[in-house]
Amino acid sequence: MLALTILGNNSALPAFDRNPTAQVLQTLDESFLIDCGEGTQMQMTKYKIRRSKIGHIFISHLHGDHYFGLIGLLTSMSLLNRTQELHLHAPAELETIINLQLKVADTHLCYPLHFHALQEEGLIVDGKKIQVYCFKVLHRIACWGFLFRQKKNPRKLDAARAVTYEVPAAFYEKLQQGEDYVNKKGTIIPNEEVTTAASKPKSYAYCADTIYDEGLAEKVKEVDLLYHETTYLKDLHERAASRFHSTTIQAAEIAKKANVKKLLIGHFSSRYEILDEFLMEAVEVFENTELALEGVCYQL
Amino acid sequence: MLALTILGNNSALPAFDRNPTAQVLQTLDESFLIDCGEGTQMQMTKYKIRRSKIGHIFISHLHGDHYFGLIGLLTSMSLLNRTQELHLHAPAELETIINLQLKVADTHLCYPLHFHALQEEGLIVDGKKIQVYCFKVLHRIACWGFLFRQKKNPRKLDAARAVTYEVPAAFYEKLQQGEDYVNKKGTIIPNEEVTTAASKPKSYAYCADTIYDEGLAEKVKEVDLLYHETTYLKDLHERAASRFHSTTIQAAEIAKKANVKKLLIGHFSSRYEILDEFLMEAVEVFENTELALEGVCYQL
Repeated sequence: MLALTILGNNSALPAFDRNPTAQVLQTLDESFLIDCGEGTQMQMTKYKIRRSKIGHIFISHLHGDHYFGLIGLLTSMSLLNRTQELHLHAPAELETIINLQLKVADTHLCYPLHFHALQEEGLIVDGKKIQVYCFKVLHRIACWGFLFRQKKNPRKLDAARAVTYEVPAAFYEKLQQGEDYVNKKGTIIPNEEVTTAASKPKSYAYCADTIYDEGLAEKVKEVDLLYHETTYLKDLHERAASRFHSTTIQAAEIAKKANVKKLLIGHFSSRYEILDEFLMEAVEVFENTELALEGVCYQL
Repeated sequence: MLALTILGNNSALPAFDRNPTAQVLQTLDESFLIDCGEGTQMQMTKYKIRRSKIGHIFISHLHGDHYFGLIGLLTSMSLLNRTQELHLHAPAELETIINLQLKVADTHLCYPLHFHALQEEGLIVDGKKIQVYCFKVLHRIACWGFLFRQKKNPRKLDAARAVTYEVPAAFYEKLQQGEDYVNKKGTIIPNEEVTTAASKPKSYAYCADTIYDEGLAEKVKEVDLLYHETTYLKDLHERAASRFHSTTIQAAEIAKKANVKKLLIGHFSSRYEILDEFLMEAVEVFENTELALEGVCYQL
């Protein structure tokens, strides 16, 4: 299971009840928080996101609409007596800001916070079931995208058949890894007899804030779900470029070039109250597009 | 006119849809923002508080639930192309934090922000119609209360009578200041003939976060409205003291000792979902007490 919940989908200014950027990618075991605009902790409460499941937080860049809610979340986690480790992956300067804010408040977090400065493209988290990579995107200040790849899933055990073939339970994990079983008589039980294929590992790419950049397509190639910002509709492509943002059809072009399965668009400018046109414009270029709507959980 | 709108009434953790501390004191001409917890800018939108009318912001202390929403508000004001000056009165370290956050975002505010470090008790704003004083309160870190005093109001002109007595319009301002008028024949028109008494200047005291401190009563003596925190109900007075907070009856005791007209209690701990008991306990000691409820505008 891999699912993405949108907690905020607006660009710089909160407007029309839309909040600044924050997303949670959830597996059965753990959650990853991606960006953390002001109000994220309240949005987490509203949409029943369990803070205790979050082991890693990723901050794309240091424009306020992507991180002003972080310090509140970190201190609230401490007030809630969190004990487990938290890993924060972010531009280096954020560590200075957080430490300063804790210092002036004479506050010490009651859980271990490990800060990992984003410096080079590549693997930044090698988890049990998920790997996370960071990659550079082109914005007005240093900015990072994140690519989440599920590891190869174990094959699904057909327990009834395994019993029939008298495979000992101790061997089940090896079956799930694809091994054949050889019984006491020396007979080979082919793996396919007692397991079925694993579900394909899924992938999610978050491109943060970025100007239209064809080079991005290679970095997010063939992911199952691509989030690409669309701050503006297509007619404002000049404004988008001057502010290092993208338009609807630019996002859709990247999705097409990258041959992704599905495109999610967000980071809408507060100049737009109604979002319908965003979708209408994007689907003309890339059909399988959806709007990133707050509170909605997108299954991968 | 003097009115106080509550934007947030909860202590450290946002809970039960209650937000961290923020209040707006409004006159006909201008608004004063007092503390600015996370989400204040969204609360301002929700409760139709016009940002452009805010000329002064006061931050009592640097615990996050009193200022984490400030940087978002400041940058949003800039995105909304504010041009008029903004005065920020706060503990000195806040300037360093704000400047750092603007620097890493490569952001420059498009309006003049004047930072005034709180250092000594006394007058900090001498406005046209309001004077603001700061005073120290006893909390875990340096913390300030704020006292707002309306200046003497002008007497009310009875325009019809002024015309009857042939007072020239150019003299009206002097009438409002209490002067008698002497007409061309040398006859004295007593001020009381053409004006009525001004409404009494009102006063509001905000005590921020504080342990029970009898000394506070002298500082907020006889104000029309006193805001005093009540993080806990009376049974938790030991916990309150250990955390430099107050209980319901402690707040009410201060109101009584200070002989204020009305007491407003807030900064409720997130351990309480229902607030009724706060009021029940406080009114036993000081009858004219109200709960500080979000979105409610309290007329002075």
